Amino acid sequence: MNRRKLLITGAAGKVGTAIRDHLRDRYRFRLLFHSSVPEVQPEDEIVLSDLADFECMVEAGAGVDAIIHLGIANGRRGYPRARYAQMIMETNIRGTYNIFESARINGVPRVIFASTNHVTGFYEKEGQISRPDAPVRPDSMYGVSKAYGEALGRYYHDAFGMSVYCIRIANFPNTETPNQEYSPGMNRWLSSRDMAELTACCLEAPHPRFGIFYAASLGSELKFDMDNARDIVGWQPQDRGAPSP
Amino acid sequence: MNRRKLLITGAAGKVGTAIRDHLRDRYRFRLLFHSSVPEVQPEDEIVLSDLADFECMVEAGAGVDAIIHLGIANGRRGYPRARYAQMIMETNIRGTYNIFESARINGVPRVIFASTNHVTGFYEKEGQISRPDAPVRPDSMYGVSKAYGEALGRYYHDAFGMSVYCIRIANFPNTETPNQEYSPGMNRWLSSRDMAELTACCLEAPHPRFGIFYAASLGSELKFDMDNARDIVGWQPQDRGAPSP
Repeated sequence: MNRRKLLITGAAGKVGTAIRDHLRDRYRFRLLFHSSVPEVQPEDEIVLSDLADFECMVEAGAGVDAIIHLGIANGRRGYPRARYAQMIMETNIRGTYNIFESARINGVPRVIFASTNHVTGFYEKEGQISRPDAPVRPDSMYGVSKAYGEALGRYYHDAFGMSVYCIRIANFPNTETPNQEYSPGMNRWLSSRDMAELTACCLEAPHPRFGIFYAASLGSELKFDMDNARDIVGWQPQDRGAPSP
Repeated sequence: MNRRKLLITGAAGKVGTAIRDHLRDRYRFRLLFHSSVPEVQPEDEIVLSDLADFECMVEAGAGVDAIIHLGIANGRRGYPRARYAQMIMETNIRGTYNIFESARINGVPRVIFASTNHVTGFYEKEGQISRPDAPVRPDSMYGVSKAYGEALGRYYHDAFGMSVYCIRIANFPNTETPNQEYSPGMNRWLSSRDMAELTACCLEAPHPRFGIFYAASLGSELKFDMDNARDIVGWQPQDRGAPSP
């Protein structure tokens, strides 16, 4: 068995589940869960820990070939603003630092970081196409925390030669059919397959490189500029969320 | 007395001292110190607190017209990497969040944030001119923490209409004469007067605006693109660090 081993954080989430389902034949998994362990396969390694625990994250990254960092603080709904900001600080900020440090300490050459279109959400609010090389304009503390993770990833790439890909995941609703009512070019829907194949492209691309990619399926052309993912890691979406403009 | 009141964090530092000296006649000060109080004037208000203390930062921002946020974690020298990262997390990241939240809660319409050329340090390492609208390329955890502060500032500007200016302070050595050995356009020296006048321009500019400015004196043209400060707040350096190219 020569399949490479991936540490996947946030492995219980929607994206983590989709990646496990789609890429199981190609990679071996070490899965990080936060509170409880969902159904896994017998060959999967599991780690149960908080991302904010530095020592455990160093241990979790030992001996893997790449890290797919999907873990985030729980969603906003219901939390007071101050409490949510604390959760963001611990999980998205401290936790992401812990993951990159774990990669550095363990000599893991590649990190794929789940970012979000909310890093540039204010362009979208103003009807502009979001572009990967534009200055950030986060629309939330969540978006700010992901801007931090991207800056951190750029630093680890430049300073330590790590291959770092930041994927600005758009609307990943875990439904296999998009809402068809969107106007041409205006959907944000991302299929499980497109997300998993982009991840695979990032895992297979020659390194070290750095990239920030928007991830959405076809029909998002007026929302996101996605050409650079094709140029840097050879990915293009295959599924369709809306007609093209 | 109609002079506006400024909260200055990191008021004991080199930049804070220069701003107090140069702008004393134009503004009233509330000065935040971390551990001990240096010589101040009888009319100055003082606050002694840690930036990481949310409740105290909300109190410190009450009733001021603007915040000049200069406070940072102590310098790198001598600290183990992990300890320094913790200090950065508490002071530069949590502390900067506390300051912006304090401004929001207290209705303070303007925040000036001391950032650094290290946010884009890898362009400089590669011999490129650093530009305010280029994607960040931090050269250190310090630079990453300042990229976070800028992203946060952008969010507070876009979401809450706050006027936010991020000043990427170059080499502020607190000497009134630059090292004259630099080649044309290649110095990073920033005079006290130029720093203080840029701060004043940010305080006087019509708001709400957002800007990221490099701050260096004349003779830094091959290091930093500073034209946008002239366009946005009407500032140009007056002192000279090196010949122009």
